[in-house]
Amino acid sequence: MDLWFTEKHTKNLGITLKIKTALFHGKSEYQVVDVLDTFEFGRMLLLDGLVMITERDEFVYHEMITHTPICVHPDPSNILVIGGGDGGTIREILRHPEVKKADLVEIDNMVIEKSMEFFPNVSSKLKDPKVNIIVKDGIEYIKRHKNEYDIVIIDSSDPIGPGEGLFIKEFYKSVFNSLKEDGIMVAQTESPFINGSLVTDIFKNIKSVFPIVKMYTASIPTYPYGYWSFSFGSKKYDPIKDFNKERAGDIQPQLKYYNSEIHKASFALPNFVQKLCS
Amino acid sequence: MDLWFTEKHTKNLGITLKIKTALFHGKSEYQVVDVLDTFEFGRMLLLDGLVMITERDEFVYHEMITHTPICVHPDPSNILVIGGGDGGTIREILRHPEVKKADLVEIDNMVIEKSMEFFPNVSSKLKDPKVNIIVKDGIEYIKRHKNEYDIVIIDSSDPIGPGEGLFIKEFYKSVFNSLKEDGIMVAQTESPFINGSLVTDIFKNIKSVFPIVKMYTASIPTYPYGYWSFSFGSKKYDPIKDFNKERAGDIQPQLKYYNSEIHKASFALPNFVQKLCS
Repeated sequence: MDLWFTEKHTKNLGITLKIKTALFHGKSEYQVVDVLDTFEFGRMLLLDGLVMITERDEFVYHEMITHTPICVHPDPSNILVIGGGDGGTIREILRHPEVKKADLVEIDNMVIEKSMEFFPNVSSKLKDPKVNIIVKDGIEYIKRHKNEYDIVIIDSSDPIGPGEGLFIKEFYKSVFNSLKEDGIMVAQTESPFINGSLVTDIFKNIKSVFPIVKMYTASIPTYPYGYWSFSFGSKKYDPIKDFNKERAGDIQPQLKYYNSEIHKASFALPNFVQKLCS
Repeated sequence: MDLWFTEKHTKNLGITLKIKTALFHGKSEYQVVDVLDTFEFGRMLLLDGLVMITERDEFVYHEMITHTPICVHPDPSNILVIGGGDGGTIREILRHPEVKKADLVEIDNMVIEKSMEFFPNVSSKLKDPKVNIIVKDGIEYIKRHKNEYDIVIIDSSDPIGPGEGLFIKEFYKSVFNSLKEDGIMVAQTESPFINGSLVTDIFKNIKSVFPIVKMYTASIPTYPYGYWSFSFGSKKYDPIKDFNKERAGDIQPQLKYYNSEIHKASFALPNFVQKLCS
């Protein structure tokens, strides 16, 4: 059978992938969960029909959302991940011996279970003793945690469905309050090419809460337009001035994308992206 | 009519675009030429069914292949473009008042004609008095020009069909000889994600000819995997050490992608790309 899957990135554009087999299809309390095995990218996790991770290119997203804040904070002991039930961000966090505890708050247990079943290399550290998995709504969770974390990573899906409330000002305020006085937040903030006005809105929301806010980007093939933004919101540390090059160097041999030069380069924005953030 | 076009980037992966209308379909002596009007990217030029440029994202490719060498060479007076019949690279070259002459050697006159007809914003400078259009095989042309150019830009299609000979060692040797003693060559060198071994082979070929060779990259949504490489081959000048920040600053207000920070950042390579070049 010649089976093809097309994800429409907009109503006029899609990515089309040849499928070996559909490994799982289910409906959780929150969303439709699919696992497809593709010829090009290996196994692929979809939520409500949108690609979340693939075995072949997940390293870019997970390395960039994780090592960027950890290599800036002088003492990244206690880290919270909101979303990210696949476990890729947790895997990257645990590469750093400085991390003492990593909490993962994921709303949908099916994402965690299916990642453990079908993506062993992504979910590999979810059972590590330093990791606490909390199956809860991140929005509610964070409201009750104050002055606790060194770093909070918002590893969310898109701002439709269960991820919607993770892009608004009130949520970023709760994140700010959950951080210690020198804490750092990083969030995935969508594609500057495809969602210009959305990126501007999200960035403004973060800027209204954090004193230091910078955008950085990376090339992720299976995400819309292949180009993705992250926002770095910080109470004290600047992502370039306070960058810890030694820490980045220590983990580089384990990584496929992130390194010291990429850390700095990822904050250099094309003119059209600078405009979205100004 | 619900008309969709799919370009297969590999046999298992494609980009799918909704089409308003097919504006042109013809066969030149060298290749099949199509112009489609898409909802997402505006007008799109295809050669042998592969996307060459779209109105919406051509700026990334053309700015990055042009301003990078021009903002390094201290006297970019005389520039040669091989390929690039659409005129986008010529348009960018002529933003620099330092340029006195730009030669364009394009094998296929139909590309030039159809760009002038359907892409007025891309081909806008092809009739400028500083520009000489030479409809010839670039491989033959360059063999007969020695010690003549400050910069040569290889704005080729992919290494199949008429572009094939533009990626081999003998060709790069001819380019080297066509350059003055402090000349710079830049070439588009395909996608590191999709064509790893091809990128390695091309880079090796360039390294066997030029004393200074560096790779740089950019995010181009409609090219395979959205991530593209360029190679900078130079006789004397280093792309970072000899970078002319003032010249880049002068043209920045006209540009949508390139700026001083992007110039430097584009040479920072992810670990997996560093491996392809080592």
